[in-house]
Order: sequence, then C-alpha cells, then structure tokens
Amino acid sequence: MATTAGKRNLITDVKGLRVGQAHDVRVNTGVTVILPDQPAVAACAVAGGGPGTRETDLLSAGAMVDQVDAVFLSGGSAFGLGAADGVMAGLKQAGRGFSLVERPGVPPTPIVPGAILYDLANGGDKDWDGIAPYAALGFEAFKAASGTFALGRAGAGHGALAGQFPGGTGSASVVMPEGITVGALACVNCFGSVLMPGTDAYWAWPYEVAGEFGGARPPADFSMDAEDWGAAKANPGLGQNTTIACVATDAALTPSQAQRVAQMALSGFSRAIRPVFAPFDGDAVFVLSTKGVPLPDPDPLMVTRIGELAASTLARAIARGVHEAREQSGAVA
Amino acid sequence: MATTAGKRNLITDVKGLRVGQAHDVRVNTGVTVILPDQPAVAACAVAGGGPGTRETDLLSAGAMVDQVDAVFLSGGSAFGLGAADGVMAGLKQAGRGFSLVERPGVPPTPIVPGAILYDLANGGDKDWDGIAPYAALGFEAFKAASGTFALGRAGAGHGALAGQFPGGTGSASVVMPEGITVGALACVNCFGSVLMPGTDAYWAWPYEVAGEFGGARPPADFSMDAEDWGAAKANPGLGQNTTIACVATDAALTPSQAQRVAQMALSGFSRAIRPVFAPFDGDAVFVLSTKGVPLPDPDPLMVTRIGELAASTLARAIARGVHEAREQSGAVA
Repeated sequence: MATTAGKRNLITDVKGLRVGQAHDVRVNTGVTVILPDQPAVAACAVAGGGPGTRETDLLSAGAMVDQVDAVFLSGGSAFGLGAADGVMAGLKQAGRGFSLVERPGVPPTPIVPGAILYDLANGGDKDWDGIAPYAALGFEAFKAASGTFALGRAGAGHGALAGQFPGGTGSASVVMPEGITVGALACVNCFGSVLMPGTDAYWAWPYEVAGEFGGARPPADFSMDAEDWGAAKANPGLGQNTTIACVATDAALTPSQAQRVAQMALSGFSRAIRPVFAPFDGDAVFVLSTKGVPLPDPDPLMVTRIGELAASTLARAIARGVHEAREQSGAVA
Repeated sequence: MATTAGKRNLITDVKGLRVGQAHDVRVNTGVTVILPDQPAVAACAVAGGGPGTRETDLLSAGAMVDQVDAVFLSGGSAFGLGAADGVMAGLKQAGRGFSLVERPGVPPTPIVPGAILYDLANGGDKDWDGIAPYAALGFEAFKAASGTFALGRAGAGHGALAGQFPGGTGSASVVMPEGITVGALACVNCFGSVLMPGTDAYWAWPYEVAGEFGGARPPADFSMDAEDWGAAKANPGLGQNTTIACVATDAALTPSQAQRVAQMALSGFSRAIRPVFAPFDGDAVFVLSTKGVPLPDPDPLMVTRIGELAASTLARAIARGVHEAREQSGAVA
C-alpha cells in the first residue's frame, strides 16, 4: 500500500486543524498560528544553537500540561514572542484554555507555545513605538485561521531569508494507507542552503511528491567539496537564522510518543538544509496530535512510521517554502 | 581551498588519538576504545529512543568534569557498559585519570563515557557464566590501541546488523585547509536502511570521497514511496538497534562548542540512515577535542564548519562501516 499527499498538500489536511497567517508589509514580518479545534497533545524539539521560544518548558516530560490550544510561529526575533499575546486574546474570547480554577470570573489560561525567527535586519521598518506589532499580528492571524493558507512570502515566513534565497512558509502532507494524515508547516529562515551546491536540486529531492518544489534532480556526476555550502548565507549572524516548524497528525499520540516524533522530525531539517543546527540557527519543531484517529496498532513501529513521515513531510515543506518564495520573488525561471 | 581526506581516512588521522578494538568470535561481539593521549574535551548527544550509556551525565553543562580519558563503544546491550571497567583498568595502570584527592595510595579516577549497541540476538554464544566478557574485551581493546584499526566486522561493530545487511565499524576523516582534522568512527547496528530504496546507492552518497564506499549513485529517475524503507529491519525490537559513534577533532573546542558540534553531527545519522532516531534505536554520538590546534578563528562560523564536517564525516563513516561489512560477508558483488 502506498502513501499519497493529502488533498490540499497542506498541514490543514490534518482534520481538526486550521492555520491563520497575518503579515505587515511595511515592517516586513508576519505571524503564523496553527490552531487545533480542541486542545491537542504537543511536544517540541529544539536543535539550533540560538532558539527563541515561549512555553516550551511546559511541554517537557512531567510538566503539568500536556495539551496545548495553539502553536505560534513568528518573525520579529524575541519581539515576536509577543504574538502569543494576540493568539491568547483570541482564544480567551472563544472561551478556550486550561482551567486551573473553575469559578465564574476566572478565565481559563490558553496554552500557546511557539518560536520565533530573526527578520529584524531584512529592510523592513522596525521603528515601531511602544508594544511591538506581534501581539496584534497574532490576534489577526488567529481570526484568519482556516483550512487553506498562502505559501511562500506569507505568515511568519513573510520576511525570511533562506540562505541566499528569499525564505518563506512551506507546507506539505501525506496520508498513510490506514487513513492517518501527517502534515508539516515550516517557516524557513535558515543559515544553510536548501540547494545542493552548484545545482538546482533541493537537498530534499528524494522526498519530493509530484513536482511540488519544481522537480529538479542532481546531475549524475554530482560531487562537492565537504566545505562547499552552495547558497548558504555568506555572513551569518548569531541568532539571526532559524527554521521553525510544526508537524501535526490526527493519530492519537501520547505526549511521550509525540516527543519521539519530534526527535525523528528533526531529520527533516538535516535532510533539507546544509549546514543545519549551527550556532547561528534556532531550529525548533513542534508536534501536535489532534487525536481524531486512535493508533490502529499502538506499538513503536507505528510511532516510527509516523516519525519518519514527519521527517520527510517536514523536509518537503522546507523545500516547498523556499521554492514558493523564490517563484514569487522571480528568483526561479 | 578544498578539503581532503586524511592520510589513513580514519578517525586516527586526528593527532593524539588512538583506537583499540577487541572482539570475541564465539560470543559474536566486540569493544572499541577511542583513546586520546591526553584528557580530551568531550560532549555527547543522544537522539535514539532506547539508548544505553555510561557517564554521559558527567558531560552535561555545568558538571564537574569536562575532559575525558577515553570513550568506549561496545556490543552486548547493557552488559557492554562493563567495557568501561576494562578501559579504566588500563588507564589506572597507566596512571591516568582525574585526581579528586592528590595523595599517595589514592588513584586518580579515569573518566570513560561510552555507549552500547544490541547484539544479544545475533546467534553468538551468550551463555557466559558470571561477569560478562565486556570488561575483559575493554581491557584488551585498550591494550591494542594504535593508529590503525580494522573496519567492518570489527570492534563494537563485530556482531552488528545494519538494517538487513551485516553491520560494522566504519571510519573516515577530513582535513580542512587550515590543517584542522575531523574524524569519525561509527558502529552501525541501525534499524533503518543505509541504502536508498531499490538502489545500490548509500543515502550518504553526496558526501562520499574517492569511492570509499563503492561509488554507487541513485538512478536519474529515482523515486520512492514515503513509507518504502528499503532494506530496513523487518521486525525491529525495542532497544535492539543503534548506531553509536565518536567524532574527534584536533581543534581546541570548549565543552560548549563540543556540545554544538555533537548536535550538528547528529545530522550525519539523518543523512545516512532512514528511518533514524526511532523508538527502537539508541543512537548517540560522542565528540572529542584533543586540543592540539588552537581555533584559528574562534568564532561560531568556525564551530559551524567543524560541526558540518562532523556531520558529513560521520555520514561517510556510517556508509563505509556497512559497506566494509557487506564486502567481508560477500554481500556486495
């Protein structure tokens, strides 16, 4: 039995999940919210040397909460961590959150972990006064949540730079023979290159489905020097690069299984970007389980299958995000 | 300026480092010791779901010791953790170790972290009486330490199984234009496959140097289903698979830099093995810095270069270990 891409080839092929995006052209930045209809089991794995995250400690084993109301990804460096304020505002209006005290007048607390990428030096007007625009963008993204969303220069990837190319937001999905869907969304602002040196082929090419990122393949005589990074950034700055991502599945994972899937998903970064996990990068991936489909065979082999699909779908989302951004910017013929 | 492989294309191209191996044909298992002439800065990154390790907590940030006397890799599952006893015996005879109390009659404590792979079900005679053979094998490996060592069915990789192929010990090295050497050694007992499905090409092929693992390339029309794992193990058992590895460099890394290199080196697993980091796997990599060469440009870009070379050299070592084992077993024409 074979896998197929989901109908939209987006993370929103996972039932019970919407995505909202907002961006500000003048500031050249944006926010992405991944919004499950119900609290979702969540996990996170961080592999970059300079991450910017919020509420990730809450996802560690043994912590009080093992479900979240939303995940946000944002531009803006640490300013972007304020995007959660807007997402929490939207969730509060919707009456959602984790109830610590059940009493009238005591609102539940929405649980909204997330991560940021650095886009403060991308030429946008960062001279805002007072509170940074990310809370407002987060609120806007929350309200925009739907089953479809734009790729490329959109959401948290709006002002991103992927190596020497425009970065952006990518997504992809896969459906297993059993009907379980795995989807990924990535906002790609990496230091390393997504292309094999001297070629038009994305490192992720073995995983490509139906030409979703252009179909280029490496030449038969491909070779490279071990220090040829191709189109990586020439002058990376510490903490100025990052690929932040979310993987989602409707398979009912436990928090421990979701954590294993997050670790396996990191291979998606390694297979799509080179170099990766550098001191410059803040690479992080969240995993969400909307729990709609019980694990048909709740053994580690099923977790392995979902984890490997998380890795390959994330690699595809990374390549697709840059490819869409390059096309929109006229950087691909 | 281009990189080259080191003279031996082994981890022992790193000056000040020897490797010793020992194996027991009847038990079908073995031990590998990576032995710096002087205490080396060390770090460790664990990515598999079922690791077996010793003394790794000591390598975490803020712990008392940030240099080690040796690293061991062993077969034998958790029994193999006893290999360190033999390595410590050899180091004690040599008067080496970390002195907590400097007084006659108080021996220094050798610091010997390491990890194991599972080979208890490989058909060898595991019916030993009393203490498992790993302490003795560790002592023997220590005494055998030299600048050259056998690849394939040797050392800790002696009884390994890499997907559906014989597993083994692989190694490779690279020399940077500045003269810094990075070497890797891997004992490959992975659940996943090192070959691209339906091909003779190793996943690590883009990193291959001078046909060191056969030179096969994927066909121009390569495609695969996302769930086609090729020659992965058909019936993996929990904790029965693992790739354990050591990366070494003569560049003088701080413990924090070594930790970043370890994280970056994990991409070598991801690029050489698929699936990887499964619940079945205990994948772990150690990093050693023998500190012979001051970092010529002690900034994060230099750490990034060393980290990416750690990843690619480790990917090469993994492919080479399986390739040598396949050749020795007649599994390659």
